[in-house]
Amino acid sequence: MEPAVAVAGEAFGAWVERALGQVESALERWVGADAPAGLGEAMRYGVLDGGKRVRPLLVLAACEAVAGEPAAALRAAVAVELIHAYSLIHDDMPCMDNDVLRRGKPTVHVRFGEAQAMLAGDAMQALAFEVLTPDDDPALPPALQAHLCRLLARAAGHRGMAGGQAIDLANVGRALDEAALRDMHRRKTGALLEVSVLMGAACGTVDGAAWKALAAYGAAIGLAFQVVDDILDVTQPSTTLGKTAGKDVDANKPTYVSVLGLDAARAHARALHDDALAALARSALPATRRLRELADLIVERRH
Amino acid sequence: MEPAVAVAGEAFGAWVERALGQVESALERWVGADAPAGLGEAMRYGVLDGGKRVRPLLVLAACEAVAGEPAAALRAAVAVELIHAYSLIHDDMPCMDNDVLRRGKPTVHVRFGEAQAMLAGDAMQALAFEVLTPDDDPALPPALQAHLCRLLARAAGHRGMAGGQAIDLANVGRALDEAALRDMHRRKTGALLEVSVLMGAACGTVDGAAWKALAAYGAAIGLAFQVVDDILDVTQPSTTLGKTAGKDVDANKPTYVSVLGLDAARAHARALHDDALAALARSALPATRRLRELADLIVERRH
Repeated sequence: MEPAVAVAGEAFGAWVERALGQVESALERWVGADAPAGLGEAMRYGVLDGGKRVRPLLVLAACEAVAGEPAAALRAAVAVELIHAYSLIHDDMPCMDNDVLRRGKPTVHVRFGEAQAMLAGDAMQALAFEVLTPDDDPALPPALQAHLCRLLARAAGHRGMAGGQAIDLANVGRALDEAALRDMHRRKTGALLEVSVLMGAACGTVDGAAWKALAAYGAAIGLAFQVVDDILDVTQPSTTLGKTAGKDVDANKPTYVSVLGLDAARAHARALHDDALAALARSALPATRRLRELADLIVERRH
Repeated sequence: MEPAVAVAGEAFGAWVERALGQVESALERWVGADAPAGLGEAMRYGVLDGGKRVRPLLVLAACEAVAGEPAAALRAAVAVELIHAYSLIHDDMPCMDNDVLRRGKPTVHVRFGEAQAMLAGDAMQALAFEVLTPDDDPALPPALQAHLCRLLARAAGHRGMAGGQAIDLANVGRALDEAALRDMHRRKTGALLEVSVLMGAACGTVDGAAWKALAAYGAAIGLAFQVVDDILDVTQPSTTLGKTAGKDVDANKPTYVSVLGLDAARAHARALHDDALAALARSALPATRRLRELADLIVERRH
């Protein structure tokens, strides 16, 4: 499998298709093949053949922006997608959102049982860090391995994704103001999207100003992603989303639509998109085209 | 907080007390203080004030055996205990062992609810890797951070602890022969105990032969630990164990006692203890006293 390399003048659709091919084939190769039977199946079911792969695409695009090492970025892309996929498996379980449909298929606990779903998620989190720490890959020197593990652990943990989920849990049925909602989503969804950009950037050489600009880009598109998610939850049917539509409303969860209203939520998503592009311009990096296109994709998506 | 340093001629009990003090104070400092309220409490409840801390003691003892960097070993000790503690939280949940008592207290899901328990476990796994990858600790150069993350991720994941739990899950009510039982326990319990020794050793300089001998020591005491656990499960009351006694038998799970009988299980534990000491002798390391004493403790413990 050839790692992603920039091809001059390639259309966005072709770039995405090529990048997704590499990510799918890496996931196929690294996930679950050497796990005990039931566990391996549950892990593979939970991460293969599904999802928009926004986070891996951000990793690969950011790596391209800094002319980084593509083979390292591919590992980072797989690691971040494993964290995302494990969080969905655990989030869908009866004790959390109790959801039965995900990516158009029965959720992992429906298909494999709750115990296996919990273990599959647990094993996928460990696998993310295993993928980042190969002992035989010259593309990932130890300092880069440590940096990628540090970034991912912080984004996935109690100050990032898991922390955001806990805040979410504590606020079902409560009225949140916009600042509290933003803090929750910055952790719950934003942290992993932002760190995808930074992990890609870590695969190359980048100065402090460009790093900061990429973090601002990641924070803006991370929040935009959630605002759009909240909009789609009330405007699209389950068949388009591949997951249960309207569930935030049903669960009485605060969303950007419930706090701001639909029109203001749409305007907010557009403003965050513009913030993201402004941050890219500030970065002064020469090859930010894919990151710009991904910002468009995140805000204009229909599922 | 001063990291562990060897004190010549110190009695084992005093060494343990000093080491435990350092581990408790590090856990106290690093776990949950900066997490959202409910999550932080659940994380702290799940790991503070309890447990025998066998894994951290093995890390610190192995570091001492190779004259390694104590501050690095303390981080490794905390990381491995976080993985152990998260696995107990998830294991106790209704969809797994459905246990209500752990370390003499109500289990985390009984106290905080299932959703918070699952999130606390998830956040503790991430925190383990965060603790191993500080950006400001001269005791942990990046190459050591990467090595420790690699060791821990492999031991915790689908080929190690999580894999063993999946095999356990698949074999409730089935008759296993000793080889299959050994394979399950080598992963489920043994992998994390063995890697504790290796993570401690990684904090110093050690040649290939000594590394191999320490791995053999870790594998032997890792399995001995489980054999003794199976013996205690049928010979000790819940009040002594701090967890529900007889639960393996009640759950119709295969154990060393059910497969070998009580006398043969006891003889097996003694034989593994002797294997562990023989491996230490082969290591040719000068300061293996604490590892020897820990092997005694593991086999002679009463809870």
